[in-house]
Amino acid sequence: MIVCVCPSPAVDVTYHIDRMVPGATVRVASVAERPGGKSVNVARVLHGLGEQALLVAPAGGSTGEQLRESLAESDLPSRLVPDRAPTRRTLTVVDADGAATCFTEPATIECWPELQDAVAVSMGDARAVVVSGSLPTGVPREGLATLVRRVRERQLPIIVDTHGPALLEALEAGCDLVKPNADELAQVTGTADPTPAARRLADRYGTAVVASLGSAGVVAALPHGTWAAYPGAEVIGNPTGAGDALVAGLARGLARDRTALEHPERLLRDAVALATAAVRAPTAGDIDPAHYADELTRVGIRALDGVG
Amino acid sequence: MIVCVCPSPAVDVTYHIDRMVPGATVRVASVAERPGGKSVNVARVLHGLGEQALLVAPAGGSTGEQLRESLAESDLPSRLVPDRAPTRRTLTVVDADGAATCFTEPATIECWPELQDAVAVSMGDARAVVVSGSLPTGVPREGLATLVRRVRERQLPIIVDTHGPALLEALEAGCDLVKPNADELAQVTGTADPTPAARRLADRYGTAVVASLGSAGVVAALPHGTWAAYPGAEVIGNPTGAGDALVAGLARGLARDRTALEHPERLLRDAVALATAAVRAPTAGDIDPAHYADELTRVGIRALDGVG
Repeated sequence: MIVCVCPSPAVDVTYHIDRMVPGATVRVASVAERPGGKSVNVARVLHGLGEQALLVAPAGGSTGEQLRESLAESDLPSRLVPDRAPTRRTLTVVDADGAATCFTEPATIECWPELQDAVAVSMGDARAVVVSGSLPTGVPREGLATLVRRVRERQLPIIVDTHGPALLEALEAGCDLVKPNADELAQVTGTADPTPAARRLADRYGTAVVASLGSAGVVAALPHGTWAAYPGAEVIGNPTGAGDALVAGLARGLARDRTALEHPERLLRDAVALATAAVRAPTAGDIDPAHYADELTRVGIRALDGVG
Repeated sequence: MIVCVCPSPAVDVTYHIDRMVPGATVRVASVAERPGGKSVNVARVLHGLGEQALLVAPAGGSTGEQLRESLAESDLPSRLVPDRAPTRRTLTVVDADGAATCFTEPATIECWPELQDAVAVSMGDARAVVVSGSLPTGVPREGLATLVRRVRERQLPIIVDTHGPALLEALEAGCDLVKPNADELAQVTGTADPTPAARRLADRYGTAVVASLGSAGVVAALPHGTWAAYPGAEVIGNPTGAGDALVAGLARGLARDRTALEHPERLLRDAVALATAAVRAPTAGDIDPAHYADELTRVGIRALDGVG
């Protein structure tokens, strides 16, 4: 089982409108809502693949209640920790031309210690742990580092997908793999070119750095070498959630074989195929098995020598 | 006690942002939420004036739960009818310059018969009934007319503030007073000038028509004459909820004295003073008693002879 820790879940609300007119009153034609947050998408991908996944997240207020109900309906296993802080929403307003404006509410947590306890309880059956998403206000300094160390004490691989100081905290605490995107990587390294930036981070912390580069695929800087893995063809679709599918693939690979990073071609091929199939799916977290199988045959891999 | 029927209540959400950028991701700096809907504001004004008001409204889904909790906290008496349709939200996005973009979710009701029963139960102690706001999808044809007739059978005055076909239905069913704004009046009469339009409607249905004209005050077409009532001075502020305060004033007047429309100067002065004080308040439904007292001394009234 793979434990997916979501420090800042959301209720993702989508408004379909005719036209966005700033300063006016706009009638919403239809409203759609579903559980959101990066780790929720990771868990959904794993669940869709038939993998045992457990979402661990705080849930507060009426939006938290909504999260609880939606997850129950979707039969995605979850352990939700009651929080006094209400679960945030994200609102995406999509006009008739498909242009999307997204409003993200600030995330707050008041149950970080209880969330850690819930992760500890869940680790009994776990083969890997994923922590994905921004850290909300209310996570203490070193909070993520403590969580990473606890997972490591249990000899479980831990993958972290976050950004900024929290990403550095996770690296210093010795997480097994981080999955920054190009911007997040540049932000913590000061280096715009992702390949040397990932290499530098991997060397400094002795960690696997798999940087997602959108349609260009990934660059994976591992302790013993650097690889590029990329989709076989240009893919048109919805990139939201592709990074989460990538993380899901990496987590599944490490959960099955702790040594998967030693000969990473198969792991990277699988994760990039999942991410590419996710782009072809209309909503984050849904993957068509046929697309996945198709992409698996097309992913390109090459070792990058002499990087760094 | 005044029964305030709200067929389409809402959770009013306000996002404060720095700048609206259509097509981009915008971080929300702060989120505020409160119960909304026209009749909620009417009930809130009455409650603030020390008047006994009872809000009767459907409430469904997690937003309905939120509505229930917020109303309980505000100690505004309410009878909420459980609905399978979730309570809608309105979302107002306010930027750093104060410019507001409002998104209104569609309203749906699945408990219209139960809502009518709740109104019937509430009428035992009532001196007047107000129905205010749009009719949601799910109200049957003649649904509002039936409600108006039931109130009239109990010899209670009924005031309706709605628009379009529902407004005509309420007039045909013999409600005592309608409160359209200039646009709503033009829409049902085809006449752009509100004074003859109100006069025509009042004559045709034998009903009081009090049309709200924004900062110009009101024109009141009653069976026996037409009056204009207007604020004493230009008022700067937030016009949201001013019409609801006007309705609250008219309802209170009719609840206290069923014959108040026969010599309407006092009733109109009071209602226009409340509406003007509401403009001076930062949020809909809140009225500063000092502003109200102040405006009462300033409202101008004049009989309009030979209209129609």
